[in-house]
Formats: sequence, structure tokens, C-alpha cells
Amino acid sequence: MRFTSEQRFDDGVLEREFTLGEIPGILWTPASASAPAPLILIGHPGGLHRMRPRLVARARHSVADGFTAATIELPGSGDRPRSAIAEQARADLRRALEAGEPVEEEIVDRLVLPLAEKAVPEWQAALDALLSLPEVGGPVGYSGGLIAIGVRLAIVEPRIAAAVLFAGSFVPRTLFDEARQVTIPLHVLLQWDDEANDRQAALDLFDAFGTKEKTLHANMGGHTGVPQFEGDAAARFFTRHLR
Amino acid sequence: MRFTSEQRFDDGVLEREFTLGEIPGILWTPASASAPAPLILIGHPGGLHRMRPRLVARARHSVADGFTAATIELPGSGDRPRSAIAEQARADLRRALEAGEPVEEEIVDRLVLPLAEKAVPEWQAALDALLSLPEVGGPVGYSGGLIAIGVRLAIVEPRIAAAVLFAGSFVPRTLFDEARQVTIPLHVLLQWDDEANDRQAALDLFDAFGTKEKTLHANMGGHTGVPQFEGDAAARFFTRHLR
Repeated sequence: MRFTSEQRFDDGVLEREFTLGEIPGILWTPASASAPAPLILIGHPGGLHRMRPRLVARARHSVADGFTAATIELPGSGDRPRSAIAEQARADLRRALEAGEPVEEEIVDRLVLPLAEKAVPEWQAALDALLSLPEVGGPVGYSGGLIAIGVRLAIVEPRIAAAVLFAGSFVPRTLFDEARQVTIPLHVLLQWDDEANDRQAALDLFDAFGTKEKTLHANMGGHTGVPQFEGDAAARFFTRHLR
Repeated sequence: MRFTSEQRFDDGVLEREFTLGEIPGILWTPASASAPAPLILIGHPGGLHRMRPRLVARARHSVADGFTAATIELPGSGDRPRSAIAEQARADLRRALEAGEPVEEEIVDRLVLPLAEKAVPEWQAALDALLSLPEVGGPVGYSGGLIAIGVRLAIVEPRIAAAVLFAGSFVPRTLFDEARQVTIPLHVLLQWDDEANDRQAALDLFDAFGTKEKTLHANMGGHTGVPQFEGDAAARFFTRHLR
């Protein structure tokens, strides 16, 4: 892990870009750190640059609440090498959406499954590197999408103790079986009036999660219109489970 | 409105029982009141005595958050005269539940509709009396069940500015049409694994609400197992909309 740049925000948050091998990432910590603070992994659908304003807002909120926060680029997104399979699946998805057709499950499988397969070990490698820093501690939370990555991490990565999941992406069929294996506390966000979202699939997925400690928060406001107060609610969830 | 008894809790909450004509009720205010505080009407399924421990806990939470709180007995519950129609509907409901049969919609209609019809003007009369007290102010929130009473009040009573609704009771068919007329902010609680609850009806009702500001919180824990942190979430909702 190699730090490549740093800047300080006026709220006392230190933001550092890093690379982990070929993978770019960003770490946010309190500028004046004392004890190691629990880490929240900030998930996203890929494209650090495009997503950056929203990621930075979520990360600064987390640091203000006493956590550290970090994210890495997804395989095939941003400046990372494209995958032919994923590009083809994305083109097929776009074509279906533009034609107003239902998105076939095999397109979702082609898009999401190889991505999650490749991303999960990368997030685990990032965890190894991040947790070796003196200012970053456990337990770890995962927050955001893609939900397939969050669910897989919740199952295979014992250092992750709680997760906030955005039920807003396409759900591959195998995810329902994986969901039953999740036993950590979950806080699931659903934008009720998100036209790009399969609401019934999101509700079915919430139902499938095996954990006894799961909460669903559904709001209005469209795909990107998660209300501001949900940031506070997510922070309280992590405070209950990571502190 | 006639106060019939009072007691002080050690957290500085003054609890006074009252009667409004033949209707018993309870008012909770800060023992040392200064300015009038917004009122939260504490809804329930009927039976003040049976429900009392839970009602008192919710009311003291509200007063600690800077509100006043009040409730009244429902028609046909507690010491109030029974209604032959409601008793018959309740017996039919019990019979269906014990036989493991689906509850017919006309039973729910017979049980809930006359009750809401009678209860809503009573809650409005209670509002008149309560808001004439110097320590009680507006705007007003409604919190709890029966959901048919909460929805009707949200439509017909302009002094009610926000409502927390428990989606845990039987839903008469006409409620879906009424739900579309609701325009105040709503915070809806659903116990996901409540076997006595029709989950799909609750989700359909949430979808039907006409307000653009609606949030659904679904949790595990069965019918009476609403997690403690939901009390705080409801308080934050009322603070956003009543203060």
C-alpha cells in the first residue's frame, strides 16, 4: 500500500489517496488521531472519480462519528483495465433498459457475478493493508453497494461485523442463497420509488437474509435521493455494532 | 375535561388521568413546564389498562424529548360500553384465527370501520381540550395504532402535522383509498416477522400513501418486539417535523 497524495479538510478529516498494487483507493482518518478507530469500508457501484463527491460526504460523516473510512476502485471501473465480459453484459443491460424490456437474469449474472468474484478478495487485501495502519482498527463495517459485494464480504470476511447495504442494484439469482448465510447485523436501505430498481427483488432479498438483526429503511426520492437523515441513521447503526 | 388523579415519575414527568365526558384518558407533561410543548397523541389498539406499561414508556420517552403526550380509551374497550357489532366481529375474527383460516375482509371491515368512525371525532374532541391547556401546544403528532384511526386523523384533522404508524393491524379495504389522501410526513413501522400481520397488505398500504415524505422501518422481533432504537428514531422523526 502506497500513499500517493493527501489533503486536509477544515472539519479535521485527513484524506489520503493510495494504490494497492494496481488498485487505487482512498483513506479518510481524523487528522489528529489518537487510538485506532473502527473502519468503515465505503462501497459503491464502480467509478471512484464519478462517485467521489458522494463518497467523500459519506466518509467525512463517518469520521465525524468516530470512525475511519476507506474505499477502493472496482475491477473494470475508473482507470482499471476493462473486462470484455463485463463490457458486453453492460452493453446488453443498456440495450434492454433503453428498449424498455425486462432485464434478463443471465445478463445480471454476467454483469455482477464475475465482478463480485474478483472484487471481494481485493477488498480483503485492502482490509489487510488498512488494518496494519496504527490509526485504523476493527471491528469493520461495510457500507453501500454493490450489494453482491457487500453480501459476499459479510459471509466470507469474519472481520466485518455489521453492514449497511443499498438495495438498489441488480440482484443475481445466486444472491438469495448467499443472503441466507449472512449472520451479522444488517441495515438495508431501499429507495421505494427508484424506477431503476426491482423493488420486489429488494424486499425478497431482505426477507432472505439469515440474520436475526436486520432493519429495512425505505424512503422516497428516487435512485440518488436518499434523505440526509439516513446518513445519521446509518451512523447510529454502526455505533451500536462497532463501538 | 376533568383531571381525576396525578402522579410524578422520578424523571420529572407528570402523569394525569382525566375523563372527557365518559372517555378516560391520560396526559403526560414535564412536571416543571415552561413554554407549551408540541403534543403527541399516543395511539393503541384499545384497552388502556392492559396497554399501560407500554404506553407509559412511549409517553415518558416523548416527554424526555421535549413533547407532551396524551391518549384516550377507544370506543368499546377498557371500561367503556361494548358494541354488539364489534364484539361479534371480534368473535368471528378469533374463530377464523383459531381455525387457521384467512380472515375475511368483511370481518375486518365490521371490526375496524365503525370503530374508526366513532373514535376519530373523540380524538378530535380530546385535541380541543388538550390544546386549551397552557402547557400543551401544536403542531400535533399521532403515534401508533390502530392504523385506520391514524390514517383517518391524518386526513381530516389539520392540526396533525406528522404521524408514526404501526403497520401491524388488520387493514380494511377502504383504507387504501384513504391512504392516497394522506399528505403529511409519515414514519411507518413494520414488524417483518409478525405472524399475526399481513406483511403484503402493510407494504401495499405504505405504497399507497400519497405523501412524498414517507419512510418505512421494518424490523425483526415479532408483534411486540419493536427494537428499543425505534423509539429514538420515532422521536427524531417528530423532532424534525414538530419543532
